Amino acid sequence: MSSSQPETANTFSAEQYFATQPPPSSLEHDVSRVQEFVQRQLREGRKVVLVTSGGTTVPLELNVVRFLDNFSAGLSFDMYMRQGTRGSTSAEYFLKAGYAVIFMHRQFSLQPFSRHYSHSTHPFLDFLDFDPSEDPSVASHIVVRPSERAQLVEVLTTYKAVQRAGTLLTLTFVTVNDYLWLLRAVSQELSVLGRSCLYYLAAAVSDFFLPRQKMSEHKIQSGKGSLHIEMDQVPKILKPLVAEWTREGFIVSFKLETDPDLLIPKARQALARYGHQVVIGNDLHRRKFEVVFVSPRSASSASAKQTDSIRPSVDGYEETWLRIDLANDPHKEIEEDIVAELVKRHSDWIAAASSPGKSS
Amino acid sequence: MSSSQPETANTFSAEQYFATQPPPSSLEHDVSRVQEFVQRQLREGRKVVLVTSGGTTVPLELNVVRFLDNFSAGLSFDMYMRQGTRGSTSAEYFLKAGYAVIFMHRQFSLQPFSRHYSHSTHPFLDFLDFDPSEDPSVASHIVVRPSERAQLVEVLTTYKAVQRAGTLLTLTFVTVNDYLWLLRAVSQELSVLGRSCLYYLAAAVSDFFLPRQKMSEHKIQSGKGSLHIEMDQVPKILKPLVAEWTREGFIVSFKLETDPDLLIPKARQALARYGHQVVIGNDLHRRKFEVVFVSPRSASSASAKQTDSIRPSVDGYEETWLRIDLANDPHKEIEEDIVAELVKRHSDWIAAASSPGKSS
Repeated sequence: MSSSQPETANTFSAEQYFATQPPPSSLEHDVSRVQEFVQRQLREGRKVVLVTSGGTTVPLELNVVRFLDNFSAGLSFDMYMRQGTRGSTSAEYFLKAGYAVIFMHRQFSLQPFSRHYSHSTHPFLDFLDFDPSEDPSVASHIVVRPSERAQLVEVLTTYKAVQRAGTLLTLTFVTVNDYLWLLRAVSQELSVLGRSCLYYLAAAVSDFFLPRQKMSEHKIQSGKGSLHIEMDQVPKILKPLVAEWTREGFIVSFKLETDPDLLIPKARQALARYGHQVVIGNDLHRRKFEVVFVSPRSASSASAKQTDSIRPSVDGYEETWLRIDLANDPHKEIEEDIVAELVKRHSDWIAAASSPGKSS
Repeated sequence: MSSSQPETANTFSAEQYFATQPPPSSLEHDVSRVQEFVQRQLREGRKVVLVTSGGTTVPLELNVVRFLDNFSAGLSFDMYMRQGTRGSTSAEYFLKAGYAVIFMHRQFSLQPFSRHYSHSTHPFLDFLDFDPSEDPSVASHIVVRPSERAQLVEVLTTYKAVQRAGTLLTLTFVTVNDYLWLLRAVSQELSVLGRSCLYYLAAAVSDFFLPRQKMSEHKIQSGKGSLHIEMDQVPKILKPLVAEWTREGFIVSFKLETDPDLLIPKARQALARYGHQVVIGNDLHRRKFEVVFVSPRSASSASAKQTDSIRPSVDGYEETWLRIDLANDPHKEIEEDIVAELVKRHSDWIAAASSPGKSS
């Protein structure tokens, strides 16, 4: 493999990116759905969280004959296909906490509620039975196996309550381009909510992409075994998100690392660079039972409003570790505690504002 | 993109491939499951079909940080994620026709029965209700919506019958390497069934792969935007399958084309090259309602036993078109007719044998 020097990978600014890359065709329709959703939540006085979930895809050809799937180091395909676990699980707990949720996920990745019934690991057909005491040709006598009833009642009850309340809006992306355009448009719509909006950016976004203008050149010749592609760096989208698109939102990003020693430094680096409120650090092998919240000391005080200008020194950060004991409580989900902690911090953030939601 | 000349892409023979590429760790376990399954079907006198389904993946790095997903020209990501439709649908009709089915599919692609309830297009939570006349806290009072009952009863009845009869064995693959090793091992086990075994090779297999020995060199540098990979050609696995691994099986392969004019010539070319029994040609945009069976004129006669030596002239082939009218019968699945036609041809093939299953 001949790999170019770092400097040969162009870095697009967000402005350059959106000026040169075409928006997805569904963008306008999605935006109008978001506007309607946001207006309803404003009327009904709900806090809103944008949850992004799943991994983005990098098409290598215009007709997407082949694409590069790009996900965090060390993920097996199996773990990759379970991507969306953090996002879809957290979305459920935000809904239970009374938030309205915009669930922006990679198409076909896990979703709230249905995530409990993966076709591969927990197929729902396996817990439906015909009532043996009845005529099996009568569908109303399909019953749920006793072992599955409690969970299904809970899932179904919440699912239907959420549908009635209209507190869940689902948006989908596939490519990194879909994701970037959608995130910008949605965050601009959400800015009317001021501090009442939480950003929970759990999606795994590709580092590199192939600009549309280069794609045709990059058509892979079938019948040939050669693939040579110069990709460009995806713009760091957190910067304009924090500084321009949604100045008052409470913004949480994620870092997944395989080297535990890098977790805190990289999280602090991201906070210093983008000036948002929280980085949740995950060690790849411990992420199911341990995460660390890294934030500026001032994150939950009003002064943090100017975070995009803050460049705190090393001791200007604080870490909070969350751990659960899966040995004693195997059904506990750490997302429950993550969301509880964020709901608290978000309330403090709202309370700390001199003029809540003034941007609306 | 600098793309090499065709001759620079090494072509591995099947022998070279298996001599140099490592088997998947699950292979031994899968083989013992297949042996057990085959013995049971032999005892109970069932015909067996191997259905392969879904697309293979090409890892670009040892730890599969990134991989190439390689699927037929013109497929959108959406269609791609629906891959496995042909295979999973056909598997159901083979089961209904009394076959025992080994369903060898790409992990997380569509499966028989559960395919009817995609989380994205037909989420099962949407057709469960609490019986309004009852206490909703009692799960036994979860009922199926009337509009969904008929289909669910049918799916569930067949699903449970298949489970009781033990006529469905599911195997999974992810990479093209998994697929090649598994196909070889399974076909060798199935050869004891002689002519009673049908091969329905609907999986979309990558043309190129990255030999394990080259992978470490090919580690993509993070922080760099360059990707330069010389891939090798995947061996044409149909050749040893027909000629060596399972000399008496009835073998059906698939061709998906975007150019209708190429369908017949390419299908004939494949039959001439590999000497198997049927190529089912699909035009990408018509595959839901039209396919063509291409076969040597002699395909269902005993003389076809030496197919691996036959090189018929152009008029040595016959085409049979299958079409359904979705306008008048929107719920009809063309796989029902494909399977019916193959069941008939397979019976003729068995009847035509001078000594059925003599290789067992």
